[in-house]
Formats: sequence, C-alpha cells, structure tokens
Amino acid sequence: MSDDSLWDVVIIGGGPAGLAAALSAARDRYRTLVLEKNGLPGGQIMLTDRVENYPGIVKIGGFELIEEQKKQATSFGAEIAANQACTSLARRDDGILDVEVNGGEKTHQARAVILAPGSDYRRLGVAGEDEMRQATRVSYCATCDGAFYRDKHVLCVGGGNTAVEDTIYLATRFCKKVTIIHRRKEFRAQEVLVEELYKAAGEHDIDVKLPYVVEEIVANADKTDLDHVLIKNVEAGQVEQLKVDGVFIFVGMNPNTGFLKGAVTIDDAGYIACDPVTLKTSMPGVFVAGDCRQLAAMQLATACADGVVAAMGLKSHYRDPAGWEKKAPGDSPAQGW
Amino acid sequence: MSDDSLWDVVIIGGGPAGLAAALSAARDRYRTLVLEKNGLPGGQIMLTDRVENYPGIVKIGGFELIEEQKKQATSFGAEIAANQACTSLARRDDGILDVEVNGGEKTHQARAVILAPGSDYRRLGVAGEDEMRQATRVSYCATCDGAFYRDKHVLCVGGGNTAVEDTIYLATRFCKKVTIIHRRKEFRAQEVLVEELYKAAGEHDIDVKLPYVVEEIVANADKTDLDHVLIKNVEAGQVEQLKVDGVFIFVGMNPNTGFLKGAVTIDDAGYIACDPVTLKTSMPGVFVAGDCRQLAAMQLATACADGVVAAMGLKSHYRDPAGWEKKAPGDSPAQGW
Repeated sequence: MSDDSLWDVVIIGGGPAGLAAALSAARDRYRTLVLEKNGLPGGQIMLTDRVENYPGIVKIGGFELIEEQKKQATSFGAEIAANQACTSLARRDDGILDVEVNGGEKTHQARAVILAPGSDYRRLGVAGEDEMRQATRVSYCATCDGAFYRDKHVLCVGGGNTAVEDTIYLATRFCKKVTIIHRRKEFRAQEVLVEELYKAAGEHDIDVKLPYVVEEIVANADKTDLDHVLIKNVEAGQVEQLKVDGVFIFVGMNPNTGFLKGAVTIDDAGYIACDPVTLKTSMPGVFVAGDCRQLAAMQLATACADGVVAAMGLKSHYRDPAGWEKKAPGDSPAQGW
Repeated sequence: MSDDSLWDVVIIGGGPAGLAAALSAARDRYRTLVLEKNGLPGGQIMLTDRVENYPGIVKIGGFELIEEQKKQATSFGAEIAANQACTSLARRDDGILDVEVNGGEKTHQARAVILAPGSDYRRLGVAGEDEMRQATRVSYCATCDGAFYRDKHVLCVGGGNTAVEDTIYLATRFCKKVTIIHRRKEFRAQEVLVEELYKAAGEHDIDVKLPYVVEEIVANADKTDLDHVLIKNVEAGQVEQLKVDGVFIFVGMNPNTGFLKGAVTIDDAGYIACDPVTLKTSMPGVFVAGDCRQLAAMQLATACADGVVAAMGLKSHYRDPAGWEKKAPGDSPAQGW
C-alpha cells in the first residue's frame, strides 16, 4: 500500500464483487484499497475453469476473468493488498472506520467500507472433491453449471431445498439421468418439493437413494476427468461404484462473515443484512456486495453488479455521512441514484 | 421465429438487460424469444463507442458488446426478432400472456414475459447532438463517462437534481473546469444541492450561467471531434461560443413503457414498479429488467444482472404460477433463490 493515511474506501474481499466495486470507486477517483485474505485475489470463481453465463463474454476461465478485473481496477488507481484477512471492523465516533487485519497486525482507516468477503460452498471433504472441482466435474451450483450436463448422468448430493429443487431442475432441463443421495432416510426439504421430486421421477430418469453418503470421488488414470464415485449405504454399510459424468454437491454455504459479528447485523444463517436497493448495512458507511449478503442471487453477474451499486452509494454517503438511513437524493423516482 | 406456438418466455427489448435475460433463460432450455423494436438489437448502448466500466472487460464498444451478447444468447437457442415493437401486453384467465406487436400485426403467446424496453435519455434536439454523441463528446451519464474528462473542460446542461449533482461530481472528481447552463433563472434542484454547487464553485472552477440554452453543438472540420458549443442567453438573446471538450446533457429520461399502461403498475415518472429483489411486476408471470424499472441503478452491469435475476425467477414461476406473491422457496434465507 502506498501509505497509511485515510482511505476513501476499503473493500474487504478481492472476488468479482470486490473488484467490481474497486473499479467503480477508483473510476470515481476515490482512494481505494482492496483487502484480499488469500495470496491471490479472486475467491471462489478461481476454482472455475469455464464461465459461459456472464453477459458479454462468451467464454472465460475464472482466473482470466479475475486477471481482467484486477487490470481494470488497478488501471484506475485502486490498490490491492493480498494476505490481508480482515479480523474486525469498528466505527469511531467521528465516523472513521477501523479495519483490522490479521488479528491486529495492522489497522486500515477508511471513510467507507464495502464488505465483499463472499461465501464458500460447503464441501463434503472427501478424497477427489477438490481435484475434480478444478476439472469442472464437481459443481456446487446447478444454475451455473447445469448447461454443461445435457444428456449426461449426474449425481446430486444433499437433502435440503436446494438439493431437491436442483435435482428436479437438472433432471427436467438438462440431464439424461440424475441420481440423488442423502445421508438420512428422509429429505429435510419442504414437503411440496419432495412431492415434486417423486412426481418428476415418474416422468424423468431420477434415482433416489437414501440413506447414502459419498465415500470418494475417483478420477481416471491420468487424473484429467471423473471416472466414478464411490457411494455408501449408511445402513447396510456396503459401498457401490456409480458411473456418472459429474457431481453436484448441495450441502449449504458458509458466508465468510464471522469476523463481522457484533459489528454489522448478520442473520441467523450468517448473511449480512442490507437494504436490497442501496446495499447499505446496519453500520453507517458500510456497504455490502456479493454472495455474503442477504437475498444475493449468487451469480457472477449479480455479484459484479452489487459491487457497482455499492460503489455508487459512496457519492451520497460522502456528501451526507449523517444521512445513512435516507435514500440518496435524486429526481423522483430515484433512478440511477 | 421458428413457429407460432407458445413461448416459455418472451423478452421485450434487445438491449443488454434483455439479452442477458435471454442468455440465462436459453441456458435453462426455455424456449426464448427476444423482441427488438428496431432493426438491430442493442438499444442505447449501441450509441457508445467506449465502455470501460463493465467488470471483466477492460474496453469494448457498445456495438461489439451487443454482438457478443447476441452470440451468447442465440448459441443456447434463444431467437431474436427485429422490427417487433410491442404495442400491448395482456394476461388471459389461464395465465397465458399475449404480447401484441406492431399494433396488432402479430400476437406472440408466452408463459412468462420479461420487460426490458429500456429508457431513453431525453435529447436536447439541437444540431450536432447525435453526431457528437456517436463521437463520444456528448454524454448523458456522468457515472458512465466522467472518467473520460480528467483535467478537461465540460459543459453541463440542465437544472434538476441530476444536473446539479453531477456538475459537482464532474468538477470535484475529474474536470479542470465545468460550465453549467440552465434555461431558467433558477435551478429546480433541491436547495441543499444548489447550495452545495455554489460551495463547490468556491473551491473548483465551476461557471454557472443562467438562463442559457444550447443552440448548436459544432463539430470540427472533419466531423470527428467537438470544436465548440453555441449557447444563447435566453434573456439578452445573444449567442456565445464556448470551447469545451465535452457536453453532458442532464434533462431527464423517458422510460419506454407507454405501451404497458393499464397492464402493469407504472409510477408517475413512467418506470415499472417491481419487487427490487425478485423483479416481479404487478402482473403474474411478468418480470422486469434494466433501466425501465423503478430504482434501477442505470448502469450496464446492473442492467445485465437484472436480466439474469429476472430469468432466475422463471423456475419458481413455472413451478407455481399461482404463487406470484410468494418469494421463491429456498433454504432460509433465500440465497440464490
């Protein structure tokens, strides 16, 4: 970082949302610092080799997308600092925000903060999971990756609403066959969805196996592709080999918001509460963007748009720091506030 | 169009929001038709030669961006029909939506509709305006184009909140000098903004000229760049020549929603009312995306994200067409609904 003086805005998280916010803020000539907890910015999208659903880019890898976003943000003057895990956030009486990193190793001062720490998909934690995710044969998002499995056979893992809903989605829209397993004898999804699953199973090739868990995700000999999955019947104990083209894991998400407890309002599931239009959080001067916020659509395009929206809020915040609860002024109605 | 049977979704408007919606819907294998009123899709962004604020793309022209978006949407099976101006929208008792085009020349049937007709910036209607817009010397959006005028002198035109606010924004963040003119002797912006304008004029080079109008925007000899602007003092009648590097016109917007009056709820300014999270309108089965909706952020990234969000809503709508008022089901809280 160029110096330790007051930043106009500190952005916590260097994924697509954070870097989009940095681009917008830096274009507005705000002194902008992005804090990335890992050694490289990017977040979850870095684990994706193939993005085909981002408007305006026919095909790109996650790594390449982040490279572009970094280039954009820094070309307008934003600074990006790696290995800076935010460990606490506090607001002084004068409105200055203290952003502590690495447990007190350093504290950055800012006039505004944009929270973009993201969420992580919960992993099963089985052998082969990470390698096959990198090879785009393990996914955690049907909306993102369903289209890659037309006329294929996939395994879905999980028992909640998302697991059941996205099994139906994959089976009815893309796949030749879907096998769904869950570790318990009953799904915990809403009954209406479970009914719909069994109804869909009458018309499409859906195999429901309960109670089953994944033992291992096994690559082929040269480790470039998925060969099969080992699943275990929890009651009987026996292990079966399942030949599938891909694995969708729907066992929940962990928003990376633990360090914010007590600072901004966070809901029971760990997502940051906000005004869905302005993305203001409960703490004056602090905005939120991306997968860590309540009601996020959890898509690349929406995360980037969140970053843009959060940065647009800076203008009215700097003008009127005491007016946090107000909507920004503007011709009625507040278009493009 | 391939045939006249029922479409899963008809998207009204072929700009960035509509094409992003088409990409998402077509990826989900919905039979998707985009209706574009003009001979070519694209909308307002087609008038922009230089986009540098779209996350993930360092630099692109509006035309090229639309080409990419068209390629994406059609590669997944979406169809795009040009010269199809929607003239009315109605919902039958059975929930099917009738989309009439060109005053009854044809009616398309759809299970769902995404409204993305956009908004047009109000033009002054003076000579040279359109040519210099194409040459990126006339702009209607400070957030979009302010960064192109670092250390330059620009003329701002208008007297409302946006005009005053964005004059301050341009003068304090980018420009060497800003001249603002308005046709009346007083601004109609909120007083707090007018006070702030005069305060900023004490610290930055801001020249306020009232009451003045633009007579003509004059190109250089080879028509490639702006030479000067002719402005007229409305009271005295004399015309002055003003040398500037660019012109920002802030005289309001016209959402293209006239054909929807009586169909969906539209506010006094003409914007389509919606739930800001799900983008549902007042008519079951009809979503909205982009600059035509209430509280739109009016940015390319947010318009595209709107398209993605509106298309994501199709899944729950098709499952439960009667449940329009409900949020989509999902693990609590409704992330990635």
